[in-house]
Formats: sequence, structure tokens, C-alpha cells
Amino acid sequence: MARVAQAGDRVLLIDRRRRRHIITLEPDKRFHTDKGVILHNDLIGRPYGRQVYTHIGEPFIVLQPSIADLAKAVRRITQIVYPKDSGYILIRMNVHAGMRIIEGGTGSGSLTMVLAHAVMPTGHVYSYERRPEMSALAAENLAHAGLDRYVTLHVRDIAEGFIERDVDGVFLDVREPWLYLAQSAEALTGGGFFGALVPTTNQVSALLEAMEGGPWYDVEVVELLMRRYKVNAQRLRPEDRMVAHTAYLIFARYVPDYTAAEEEGEEASQTPSEEEA
Amino acid sequence: MARVAQAGDRVLLIDRRRRRHIITLEPDKRFHTDKGVILHNDLIGRPYGRQVYTHIGEPFIVLQPSIADLAKAVRRITQIVYPKDSGYILIRMNVHAGMRIIEGGTGSGSLTMVLAHAVMPTGHVYSYERRPEMSALAAENLAHAGLDRYVTLHVRDIAEGFIERDVDGVFLDVREPWLYLAQSAEALTGGGFFGALVPTTNQVSALLEAMEGGPWYDVEVVELLMRRYKVNAQRLRPEDRMVAHTAYLIFARYVPDYTAAEEEGEEASQTPSEEEA
Amino acid sequence: MARVAQAGDRVLLIDRRRRRHIITLEPDKRFHTDKGVILHNDLIGRPYGRQVYTHIGEPFIVLQPSIADLAKAVRRITQIVYPKDSGYILIRMNVHAGMRIIEGGTGSGSLTMVLAHAVMPTGHVYSYERRPEMSALAAENLAHAGLDRYVTLHVRDIAEGFIERDVDGVFLDVREPWLYLAQSAEALTGGGFFGALVPTTNQVSALLEAMEGGPWYDVEVVELLMRRYKVNAQRLRPEDRMVAHTAYLIFARYVPDYTAAEEEGEEASQTPSEEEA
Amino acid sequence: MARVAQAGDRVLLIDRRRRRHIITLEPDKRFHTDKGVILHNDLIGRPYGRQVYTHIGEPFIVLQPSIADLAKAVRRITQIVYPKDSGYILIRMNVHAGMRIIEGGTGSGSLTMVLAHAVMPTGHVYSYERRPEMSALAAENLAHAGLDRYVTLHVRDIAEGFIERDVDGVFLDVREPWLYLAQSAEALTGGGFFGALVPTTNQVSALLEAMEGGPWYDVEVVELLMRRYKVNAQRLRPEDRMVAHTAYLIFARYVPDYTAAEEEGEEASQTPSEEEA
Repeated sequence: MARVAQAGDRVLLIDRRRRRHIITLEPDKRFHTDKGVILHNDLIGRPYGRQVYTHIGEPFIVLQPSIADLAKAVRRITQIVYPKDSGYILIRMNVHAGMRIIEGGTGSGSLTMVLAHAVMPTGHVYSYERRPEMSALAAENLAHAGLDRYVTLHVRDIAEGFIERDVDGVFLDVREPWLYLAQSAEALTGGGFFGALVPTTNQVSALLEAMEGGPWYDVEVVELLMRRYKVNAQRLRPEDRMVAHTAYLIFARYVPDYTAAEEEGEEASQTPSEEEA
Repeated sequence: MARVAQAGDRVLLIDRRRRRHIITLEPDKRFHTDKGVILHNDLIGRPYGRQVYTHIGEPFIVLQPSIADLAKAVRRITQIVYPKDSGYILIRMNVHAGMRIIEGGTGSGSLTMVLAHAVMPTGHVYSYERRPEMSALAAENLAHAGLDRYVTLHVRDIAEGFIERDVDGVFLDVREPWLYLAQSAEALTGGGFFGALVPTTNQVSALLEAMEGGPWYDVEVVELLMRRYKVNAQRLRPEDRMVAHTAYLIFARYVPDYTAAEEEGEEASQTPSEEEA
Repeated sequence: MARVAQAGDRVLLIDRRRRRHIITLEPDKRFHTDKGVILHNDLIGRPYGRQVYTHIGEPFIVLQPSIADLAKAVRRITQIVYPKDSGYILIRMNVHAGMRIIEGGTGSGSLTMVLAHAVMPTGHVYSYERRPEMSALAAENLAHAGLDRYVTLHVRDIAEGFIERDVDGVFLDVREPWLYLAQSAEALTGGGFFGALVPTTNQVSALLEAMEGGPWYDVEVVELLMRRYKVNAQRLRPEDRMVAHTAYLIFARYVPDYTAAEEEGEEASQTPSEEEA
Repeated sequence: MARVAQAGDRVLLIDRRRRRHIITLEPDKRFHTDKGVILHNDLIGRPYGRQVYTHIGEPFIVLQPSIADLAKAVRRITQIVYPKDSGYILIRMNVHAGMRIIEGGTGSGSLTMVLAHAVMPTGHVYSYERRPEMSALAAENLAHAGLDRYVTLHVRDIAEGFIERDVDGVFLDVREPWLYLAQSAEALTGGGFFGALVPTTNQVSALLEAMEGGPWYDVEVVELLMRRYKVNAQRLRPEDRMVAHTAYLIFARYVPDYTAAEEEGEEASQTPSEEEA
């Protein structure tokens, strides 16, 4: 049976100029646009993937928002994590239903939402943020997305350590992740997934230096570039401009009794190329 | 409590030369390496994230394989989908626990595994493959990964149509995806997610041409490039070589009564830039 | 002896907001800026690489413009060729002092200038443009840059053929380069360099198809991406945004009696990878 | 008149497996291949861009080598500079006939050749190398390419300073370019072009730090990526693999009395984006 919009749903409305609006359906409410009014009652009980018209006849497309739509639409102060990066984080850190994962640096809660969406319904995200007002903003964003039940927000300086133990993964989106490696190790289960995101090469170097000789195995540093193409069959070409940089991503597995000295070969070949595996 | 390896688990063993081996634990079995023998009994009941030694003292790291590890390790005839691409597919198509998704072109089952891992435990993947021997290979790979219960494999030419209806997503990894747009529309719920993967620009053009004027909204064409860095704090730099190309990814939402003619502006601006949203 | 600015020189003036101005020095003239006036006489006879001040004390840096500066500063209607592309064109087509090269599609004359700068003082550029007003604009731009003596501008449809014979290179920057392959072959010396620039993949395919089976050897198709970094030692990272696409470049050598059928192996391996050579 | 091969010419011979051979023509000599013998006399006096056959009938294409061909073919110990990088260096540093330029770090002489080719016939390259055997190798390579008359090779530690004064450009291809900024400034004319090439981000940071507050204006840090496409009109797509990294390029203009403190705005905006100019 086709998906039908219901009261309480988050709904994505897109106008003819491709502007995106996300609203929560409530009986008898109205959504005011610059091209007229849409009645929530005209959406509730009707299938998704249709057009709806304002009282002056302007069409809007009605969709269920994807997690990418929701994560982009958060009210935010901080930079959000881009889908090209969050998608790779999910795969590389094995994030899946049932997983317990810690996030250091809640920020506006955008990545928190993506993680919650991936671990639900049986997993949980424990997200730490030092600034109370930032954590409150994230709480609001998570509630709007209907994902708050899968997340515990801690207002706490992670220098004091994480509260949870034997978690499957720890992801750090903080300015100086190298300061919290011991805390990450303490919280992780053996073989657990460590990840971090930093914007500058100096931070990558500082983090790698701190990880050397520690219990961090299979270390990987990557960056992802995404190039969009113009949607034109006869004149296919990339868009003129693109995002050149968001962040460097660093990953490792936590292996308590590992010492790199036992390795053969040099660090450059530590991670096998994708195509060799 | 720390994760403990159990009989039946898929286990990832990595030697000092970074070669990766995935085995299924069975009591009393032996794993033969070129550096000696490891007894499965030495792994069963012991925590992950440790080292184990062969009878001649060679160390191996013992880990739970991630879905990326499993997807790379499939026995395969066809090209696999890379993590940089499959991660973005998950995010962009909103793949999550509980989703019902169709895959056209099972191939070796590598992407099937990634999809199954993302929709479990409550969702399901319906994967179609015309070649019986290919489908059988995928079945074997899925069983090894313990993901077969989340997947229905159909040996069937998708030109005849998909069997399921009102699914949340359809992803096509076939040579001529433009031939199966009607079948995809028939199977999708309103607002559902369409995706496809093709290696050449000619195929992108052919697919876009076939989608024009149809019920396909918010069309996006992207490619992702991943660059690895050498793991060296003092001499940080990208690896010398990288994968230059895997595939172009095409996405859209299925909106039955949509006609592009109603849009303002030109097709080039159809998808808002990532940073504008 | 240090370089000294002289009457008639093209001079690059850069203000504190990094805006660039190129002027031609004339005795007793004045350069009016929004931050005051600079007397040309304050520049003539003085060395380059200094600061000069307007009558209200605003500093400007005084430099000799590079060919990249000049090519960017042209008055233009058409898209210019970017330095990342023109630099590679020079190297790949062996453009050097003394070379005779044809350009199909003068446009605003930006690439013409780069070619002229590279073949001077003993070589020559023959540049063709169908639109008289466009050719006139290019003539003006070339004169301003002091490069007009190295260029002959033809107002002529290249479908009628090029006038020169036995030239060392032909470069086409036109919408349908595949229409002018015979004309290019007719003008080129044996072993001469062919190049073309097109923005879309459809054009690349059309050009490659037209070249198949013809006297075109060592065909290469490339694209170049340039990423700038923020100039910050402590927080080194790429700029947020970049140019994602300018054009695809196609190159070949003209070998009159060559037929591809004699080749061993497949077309994919036609051009040896850079690192194999 | 078509170009004709003459005794003393460097000639590029390419076999059917696309292997490239560069030889110097001498009357009565023979070129031995694994597919038979070619007599130099069969090449001398005949036009370029033809096929020649060995005594057993194997065809070879006969071309004049481009500077890219010559630079790739050097006997070398060190890494060579790639065409994508050397082309941009030529444009960005305004290298042209008549220029006087210093190169710090001759290495195998590959970039030296590209510079010599660009400044000839009236300019000159002064290239420094500390290791006598390396300089001797470069001398041999330059002589083979017929470019030695445009180059003066110094065997000298550049810490002691460059010998020339008021040169138009200085390019450093050495491990620690930040140690030689004072020497570079001493040799450059006012407004002259400074350039450097380093493989790691740590070196970029060290160089930028050393340049801060000095007479270095319009500093730019870039990297170039080149992606080749398969030469296939019907199945156009990038090659599977590419060179992911060669080097970071750093450029600046030498402005003796410049102090960055006078700038408005922040360092991030120091270089205007390519498309703003």
C-alpha cells in the first residue's frame, strides 16, 4: 500500500523554484508560503509523492524527507557533516541497527541524526557536548526529526571521560581529537571502531602523531570529493563549481594489545588499497 | 561487557603483512596460514580486538569484520560497489532499518549485503538477477555474511517487471537502466527513491534522456572521488595513486503526477548545491 | 639590474583588497582609483616590485603582469581558457619559441595571447574567428598586451579550410571540432600536434568518433582539476569551494598514413599512463 | 614544407605496443629493436609523421619528440615533475623566451629541460645542484635533448647563495625550501616570480610559516589533479586509476618593501579565486 502522510509526520515540501521546506503535520494548521497557503488537512491522509496546491494554485511536491534532507535542514550554528562524508562514516565504522556508538562533539546534532537513523530501532547514540546551549539546540533538532528516543545527550567535557563502556564505536568531531584518545580507548570494546573528522592537515598530523604506538590498528586517512553533473542528456558536464573541501576523515580499530612495532613493512602501506582487498 | 567471539561468527584475521582473511568459527576446526596454524578453539569464547598466535608464534589481529570488510571479501565475478559509493547511496536513498528496497542486478551480491545490513532487522531487500549461476554465487556470499534472511533473491529478467509493489526504493546496477524505468515506477511507492549506477557518460546521457518528462523528480548525477593519505604524521601526503573512477550515480524521487514542464528555471539548477540547502 | 617600468609597459597594480588593475604607462597620465589618484610619472623609471601611493596615501603594489594576469584581464564575451588548462596545452603540444600554430576559434583572444607569448619572438599564431566583432575584440586585447605582432587574425569560417600549410600545431576551441578534422589535417605538417577543448562529454564522444580510423595517433583525453589551499601555515586546508569543471582536453599527433587497425591491444591502453613512461 | 628528419635530430619512435624510444639520428647507424632493425639512413631526409619498418616488417611511428616526451625520457634517479605541474609553473611564473630563471635543485634535469625549452632562444636557466654526480647526469640529459646551451649548471650548495642577480624567477625543488628564502630574495629582481614544489603538507606549512611577514606577495598554494579518459567514443569514462598526488606548488611575487600587515581582510582571501579575476 502506498505511503500515506499522517499527523505528526515530518513532511518535505518543494516549490517550483526548488526551495525545500520541512514541516510537521498537525490537524487544522496552515503552512504559509510566499505563493499562498497550504492546509495541513490537505496533506494528512493523502499519499506521498504527489503535488499539492496552495489556495492560489501554486504547486508543491510532497515527499517524505530522507535522512539527508533532515540532516541538512537542522537549525545550526556549527558546520554540518556532508552526506558524502557521513555515508562513508556509516560504512567504514559499520554503523547498523543495534549498534551502540559515542559521538564526541554533538554540535547542532546533524551527524547525531544520521547516526541515530542508522542504529535505530535497537541501537543507541551517546553524544557529548560541553556547551549547554548547543546541546539544547541539538535536542530540539533531534526531536523535530523524531530521532530523540535513540540518542542520549550528555552536557559534559569529554576530557573527563565518557560514561559508557564497551561501546562499538567512538566518533570525534572536536577541534583537538588527539586529547581524547585515552578516553576513547577506555569506552571502546575490543576491536571497536574509532573515527574522527578534522578540517586541517595540521590536525591530521597531530592526531596521527598521538595515535602512534598506541592501541590503534588499521589507521586510515581519507578525503572524499563529490562532483555533481548538470542534468542534461545532450550536454552532460560537471557543474561549474563544487565544494572543494569539507574535512579529512581518520579511522582505526581499537586493539588493546597492539603495538605497531610488530608490523612488517612501512606505515605507508598500512592500509591496503581498496582494489587490492 | 566486551564482545566475545562465538561459534558461527564471521571473524576477520589480519596478518603482519596486512593480508585479510575472513573465516567462520567452528569448534575444533583449524585455520591454515602460510605462517602456521590457528585453532578456532583459541578464538571461540575470547574477546575481539586481540592478537592470536599460530603454532609457530606468528601474530594475527582478531576483529569483527565490518560490512565494508564483508562486502570486499565476497567471491565475485562482477565489479563490486565501492564503500565511497555505497555509503552515499545509503544516505541519499534513505536506506534504514525497516525499509523495503529492490535491487536490479544482484551480481555477486556485494551491494546486496550493504543494503541488507542497513535495512535489517525489520526491512527487506528484493534482489533480481537474470543469470542463475550469478544469483547462486550471491546467495552463497549472503549466507556467509549471515545476511541471507534479510534478502529475497529472484532469478528473473527485470524486463518482465518487479514482483513487489509499493517499495521504498529501487536501485539499478545493470547495463541499460533506461530500459527499466517503467518497471521501477510500477514497483515504487509515491515519493519513493530511485537510484542507478553506470560506469560511462554515454549511459548517463541515455538514462537522463529516458527520465525526461517522466515521473522523476529531483534528479541528481554525481561522482565521488576518494583520496587516501599516507599514515605519516611528519610527512603527510596523499597516496601516490588512487582509484580514478568507479561509477556515476544517478538519483531521483518517484512523483507519479510530476511533469518537469511545470518547473521554473532550467534543468541545470534542478538540484540545489549541497551548500545552498 | 632591476627591472624598471617604462612608458608603454603594461603594469599590474594591486590594491589592499587584492583587486587587480592593468594599465598601460603613458607620461603625464593619471590612474583614478576609488582611493585616490596615481600619477603614471610616479611609476615610469622606477623599479617593479614596489609599493606606490595614491595622493591620499593608499598603497598599491606595482608588478609586471604575467601572461596569466594578462589572459585573465581580457575584455571578454566568451569563456576564457584557465591557466591549469593552457599550461598543459603548452607542454602537451610542445608550444615553444619559433613554432607556427593555428588556433580555430579566437574568441576573446585569451588563449591566443598565451600561445603568442609562448611562440614569440620567432614563431607565429594564426587565429581564426567567424564573427568579425569577436575578432576585433581579440585584436584589441592582443594589442593591449603587446602581443599582436606575433598573431595573424583571420575572419573566416574554418569550414572553408585554413590558409596556412605545414604548421606545427592546430588547436580547436569551437563548438563542433569534429567538423574540422580534415581541414586540420590539411594544414598540419606530418607528426604535427592536434588539440581541442570541449566542455561536454557528448562533444568528447563525437570528436573521438570522428577521429577513429583517421590519421590521428596517440589520442589522449584528459581533464585537469586545480585545488587551491588557504594560505595559513597553522591551519592548512583547501579552499572551501573550487572550479569543478572547465573543459575536457583532447590531443593527438597527425600521422598521415596511420591506421589504428595496425595497433595491437585495445584503444583503452592507447595512451601509456604518465608513470609508465 | 613538411618537417624532415635530419642527422643530429632527436627522434621519437613508437612501436605497435605503444612503447616509446627516443634516439639521436646518426648516418649509417642502426637501431636494434626486439622486432628487428631500423636503419638511421631510412629516417634521415624523410618527413616526420610517417611509419617506418624494421627489416622484418614491423612498423614504427616516427615523430619529433615534444618537450613532454623528452622530459619523461630522461635517465633519472629523482622523481620528475609531471606535465600537469610543469605546465602550470610555466604559466604562473610567466616563463617565456628571453627570461632568466634560477632553479634550485637540478635533480635529473627534467624540469630544467622544460624551463630551458620555454626560455630559449634568448633566455637562460641557472640550475643549482649540490651533488656532482646528479649534476653530471642532468648535463647528459640536457645535451641529449639539445638544450644544454640554454642552461648553466652550478654544482653548489644553495645555502651559500645564488651567483646571479636580478633574475626574473627562482624555482625551488628541494627538500627544505624555507631555508633558502633569503637567498632567493637576494637573487630576484623586484616583482620577480618565486615558486616551489614540495610533496608533503608539513613542508607546505613550514614554507608558508617562513614566508610570513617577508617580502612575499600574492602567495598561492595549489595542487593539480589530472584525470585521463579511455579513448572510446561509445563508452566514455575515466581510466580506472590515476596519479593521486605529485606535489603541492607554492608561488609568490617578490616585493621587497611589502609587509603583509598592511593588507585588509584575512589570509584566506589573499588569492582571488580564478573565476573572480
